[in-house]
Amino acid sequence: MNTEDQDTRWMNMAVKLAEKGVGLTSPNPCVGAVIVHENQVIGSGFHEKAGLPHAERKAIADGTARGNAALFADSTLYVTLEPCSTTGKTPPCTEAILEHHFKRVVYGSQDPNPRHRGAAADILGRAGIQVTRGILEKECDHLIRGFRLNMLEGRPWVIAKSAMSLDGRISRSPERSQWLTNEKSRSFVHTLRAECDAILTGGNTMRLDNPSLTIRKPDRPVSSLKEQPWRIILTHNAASIPADSVCLTDEFRDRTLIVENVSSYLELLKNLYNERKTGTVLLEAGGCLVREFLKAGLVDEWVGFYAPIITGGGADGVTGGSFLEREAFLEQPVVSIFGSDVCIRGDVSYR
Amino acid sequence: MNTEDQDTRWMNMAVKLAEKGVGLTSPNPCVGAVIVHENQVIGSGFHEKAGLPHAERKAIADGTARGNAALFADSTLYVTLEPCSTTGKTPPCTEAILEHHFKRVVYGSQDPNPRHRGAAADILGRAGIQVTRGILEKECDHLIRGFRLNMLEGRPWVIAKSAMSLDGRISRSPERSQWLTNEKSRSFVHTLRAECDAILTGGNTMRLDNPSLTIRKPDRPVSSLKEQPWRIILTHNAASIPADSVCLTDEFRDRTLIVENVSSYLELLKNLYNERKTGTVLLEAGGCLVREFLKAGLVDEWVGFYAPIITGGGADGVTGGSFLEREAFLEQPVVSIFGSDVCIRGDVSYR
Repeated sequence: MNTEDQDTRWMNMAVKLAEKGVGLTSPNPCVGAVIVHENQVIGSGFHEKAGLPHAERKAIADGTARGNAALFADSTLYVTLEPCSTTGKTPPCTEAILEHHFKRVVYGSQDPNPRHRGAAADILGRAGIQVTRGILEKECDHLIRGFRLNMLEGRPWVIAKSAMSLDGRISRSPERSQWLTNEKSRSFVHTLRAECDAILTGGNTMRLDNPSLTIRKPDRPVSSLKEQPWRIILTHNAASIPADSVCLTDEFRDRTLIVENVSSYLELLKNLYNERKTGTVLLEAGGCLVREFLKAGLVDEWVGFYAPIITGGGADGVTGGSFLEREAFLEQPVVSIFGSDVCIRGDVSYR
Repeated sequence: MNTEDQDTRWMNMAVKLAEKGVGLTSPNPCVGAVIVHENQVIGSGFHEKAGLPHAERKAIADGTARGNAALFADSTLYVTLEPCSTTGKTPPCTEAILEHHFKRVVYGSQDPNPRHRGAAADILGRAGIQVTRGILEKECDHLIRGFRLNMLEGRPWVIAKSAMSLDGRISRSPERSQWLTNEKSRSFVHTLRAECDAILTGGNTMRLDNPSLTIRKPDRPVSSLKEQPWRIILTHNAASIPADSVCLTDEFRDRTLIVENVSSYLELLKNLYNERKTGTVLLEAGGCLVREFLKAGLVDEWVGFYAPIITGGGADGVTGGSFLEREAFLEQPVVSIFGSDVCIRGDVSYR
């Protein structure tokens, strides 16, 4: 394999490692790192939680623990995101890289944080370390799509999830099962919750469905470091939320917030990000609230489940009315099959 | 391979051949046949059009033309459907099989026509021909799902096609493109039309969209034997259909029918089947008509396209109202990807 193929191969491994941190690292991004010496991985790691070491330092610690520190000066460090160069809760990663004087550093994404952006390449380059940027940039950028938005707009990344019939409805006749989608889909929703720091819902959903909005039966293992997401209930009248609602009475009730009379969803989101460090929130709500978020251009990612049922009635996934002034488009949607259900997921752009 | 594996292998070939006849054979079923001698195909064929030879006779003619007739007595005839045993437009296939005294006959589906059902096995068995039934029965039954319904209920198989946004709407803001789905999806719709004998639509669609409803750019080759489908326009007032509509003025205008004030969709369908031999019709209509057909339990198959757009407004794919008394379920839906569009297709049951 040539260098480019090698770079792609090891960066791909770093991406896979970074993915293990999805949902854990807010307000930090998820990052993975691999140290390679003569085509052998001699150290690797990923960022697990804000306050814990960054991926680069985890990989260095791993390599050191495996007795490979002496090889670092002849090794390449692959990292999905440009190493940080300032002191936050932990010291800058550039320092650790200089200390071991890696031969080469390869990274995928530029850091969207203006305090770091482009700085690492300069610092490392001046010390004679070869730097290659932009390997698997698209994949690496995808990992930090929420973090980038956090940096640029000071608000959380919003994923809207809706489980619909084939005709776009979200409810069934009262005498039938409350569920449209099957257990596999619902289990994936728990995994999706584990990607997020908070779940937003409306008072109506609380009154009608009394959901738990917790991670209980994900379809993939979830890190023990993962806390249950915040549950944010938007309502015109806090007293209208039944006092015996699961979210208000279960063991995670201290992570439920009721927010009354939101006048600006953007401000709400900014406050959540500033006060609770919620880098990603999941909107699990009825069609009215989903429509409001779409109208405001505040749905950043769409996860739509389609169950193989036509109900012909009931509430809409997105409440109807006039056309959205800006239609929401899914960029390169990814289709997943859950038994007989179909899931269509993608980042949203507005046009 | 053992006999069962062999049988599956050759029946699979017969199924593939039969599929070439989909959309061509009404009011007959599509059928494929393969003659195998010592693990070699020595003849094959499929039914191409009512009035032309059945698949068995096509395979026999092919084998004969290839100089293999002398081998038939030591060969197995695979055919997707129980051979016919009565004289229709063509003589019974059982006679041709007896004439060449095949060693063995293997078929997939039982003939749903009560005049034929089970008769072939008796006739052939009495002549000392081994008969095996039910090989790839599910696949073979699927091929004749329309024909079975034609036989049992005296009406066409109805495929409802709808092209929707992710929120189940079928129209966009007037200043935007009229299309939700992409060219690949629309091209597949032309292939779908080629599977059908008639297209049903409503007056509103005629007035709003002025569609051609012809097969013009299918995504697969279409037989030269295929005629353009009948175009059936359902309206309360024939005079409301613009006289310059494409369907009323193009070169296929003699295949356009306007039907006023339908009081029973079931009767309409029965009449179409009896008078025009339309074994399969495609419902390409707005949400109101689709809802009416669903309410009547007259949608037999659903083909729903989902474009990666959320419009938030416009007409619904299935017009809303009270819940359908019997929900429509897709049995084992098949998901196809057309670029960024998703197509979900399946036979419908009502519960």
